[in-house]
Amino acid sequence: MYYVGIDLGGTNIKAGLVDEQGQIIEKASVPTLVERGHEAVIEDMAKLSLQVIEKAGKTLDDVGGVGIGLPGVLDPRTGRVPFCTNLGWHDVPVIELMRKVIDKPIYVDNDATVAALAENVAGVSAGARSSVFLTLGTGVGGGIVIGGKVYSGSNGVGSELGHMIVMIDGEPCTCGNRGCWERYTSATALIRMGREAAKAHPESILNADGEVTGAKQVMDAAKAGDPAACEVFDKYTTYLATGLVNIINFIDPEIIAIGGGVSAAGEFLIQPVREKLAKMIFYKAMPYARVELATLGNDAGIIGAAMLARN
Amino acid sequence: MYYVGIDLGGTNIKAGLVDEQGQIIEKASVPTLVERGHEAVIEDMAKLSLQVIEKAGKTLDDVGGVGIGLPGVLDPRTGRVPFCTNLGWHDVPVIELMRKVIDKPIYVDNDATVAALAENVAGVSAGARSSVFLTLGTGVGGGIVIGGKVYSGSNGVGSELGHMIVMIDGEPCTCGNRGCWERYTSATALIRMGREAAKAHPESILNADGEVTGAKQVMDAAKAGDPAACEVFDKYTTYLATGLVNIINFIDPEIIAIGGGVSAAGEFLIQPVREKLAKMIFYKAMPYARVELATLGNDAGIIGAAMLARN
Repeated sequence: MYYVGIDLGGTNIKAGLVDEQGQIIEKASVPTLVERGHEAVIEDMAKLSLQVIEKAGKTLDDVGGVGIGLPGVLDPRTGRVPFCTNLGWHDVPVIELMRKVIDKPIYVDNDATVAALAENVAGVSAGARSSVFLTLGTGVGGGIVIGGKVYSGSNGVGSELGHMIVMIDGEPCTCGNRGCWERYTSATALIRMGREAAKAHPESILNADGEVTGAKQVMDAAKAGDPAACEVFDKYTTYLATGLVNIINFIDPEIIAIGGGVSAAGEFLIQPVREKLAKMIFYKAMPYARVELATLGNDAGIIGAAMLARN
Repeated sequence: MYYVGIDLGGTNIKAGLVDEQGQIIEKASVPTLVERGHEAVIEDMAKLSLQVIEKAGKTLDDVGGVGIGLPGVLDPRTGRVPFCTNLGWHDVPVIELMRKVIDKPIYVDNDATVAALAENVAGVSAGARSSVFLTLGTGVGGGIVIGGKVYSGSNGVGSELGHMIVMIDGEPCTCGNRGCWERYTSATALIRMGREAAKAHPESILNADGEVTGAKQVMDAAKAGDPAACEVFDKYTTYLATGLVNIINFIDPEIIAIGGGVSAAGEFLIQPVREKLAKMIFYKAMPYARVELATLGNDAGIIGAAMLARN
């Protein structure tokens, strides 16, 4: 049996036909064009699904279901997406509208959650009894897999790990609270801290190309040994380790996989985080989660959405 | 079938015979006398188990197993308790030693974790698909139940909710980190904040009986409308709500049950926490965990340990 996985983002709709093992057989994408409204976007998702099935030389009979990962949540009571800021969606009956075009079971979950599932099936967390996936990008997304299944909680609002408060009265967050973890560990946070450091240290190479515009710039300056950038990077890895300690003290997963833009820094990022974590862990004599780089990259969304349909 | 539940604390060993529904049929207790060493304590636990079985007019054949809740964790790989600060235990083969006296399956888990199970079987969380139990005492303990089973993680080190860091670089904690949630929400924290407020406000009734020695004193002064105590209490409930938001954003349980000494303040405590929570919740249009007072009190340890054996 095959499954269609759809990765719905603010820029592109990506769809893929995926086998039982989580391998992509065929994929395609179209621009999302959010401004058209949800009905046109959902119609395109359905059409793109049919297209990848056909391109792969398969028929609907070969397909067990369609999974969708999107930057929001599904209300499991209603089958609707209550809201999705990036897409401008409000109370969208996504399952109902998909089924108007494709008569297959439709499954929907958060994009970071399906990426967590993808890594658990075919990536770095493959086979782990429980795993957490983090994406360090514009924000910080989190996904939890327990016993091979995505864990989104009783009401479908769980695994919002980026909004774990780690600094009471800290940096204001878009969610309305203060001190959320993503204010300290997203690419956005790294840029903010890089800019502050550049201003405070006119001699820093962070000032070489005008204002700091990317997380990579800060990482590269730290790699090059620039003291101001190293200080920022040291703070950043402490913040990252702090949230990881919380995750371990909370659900004690077997593995934590780190993905998203910032994770491109690879071992340069992971190594100091592992070292700090070892010192902060509560039960020092007991084993605890491995921290690894995610391996599926941009395909995680498609694969995970398809595995949602498989499960 | 019946099950023995043992609540092993630093002061007393309590044991009870419990039925399938989580009702205590018979119970007994003896002082722990920690200083005797673990072998004598474990022998007493086993003897006390046999005693409650006999007192209830049952035999070992009526008993499905023995569960133990203790202030530490079991390493599931070895069946040993790696350490237990309150008891002075280090690498104790508790299962092996218990089985020398009682030839029944022995189960061990953290005391807050078994209390969570008790509330899920016979208390306020009865029947919930997932629940979190918090005990606000000298420290803050946490237990997680998912699908009727205790969730202690991959390595048995999860659900240490009191050590969730909510204030980077905050108050130093006994665990070696800073800013752990229990530094802000335990009875100990409430006393500390009460003392600080008493010092800063000589006119406060917090100064009526010399130094503040109990959390109840602070609560009572807040109930009486003392401005300094009200300010402390307002901070305290904000700290409590902050961690609850984290719990909800993380595993989104159906219910969060609050127990432990501080919970004796009842609705006076819970009501403001609920109000603050409503404002801080991430998905405001979606349902989220109910916050309720735990109902089993001191019996939760015995009942939960027995239910560990039942499950």
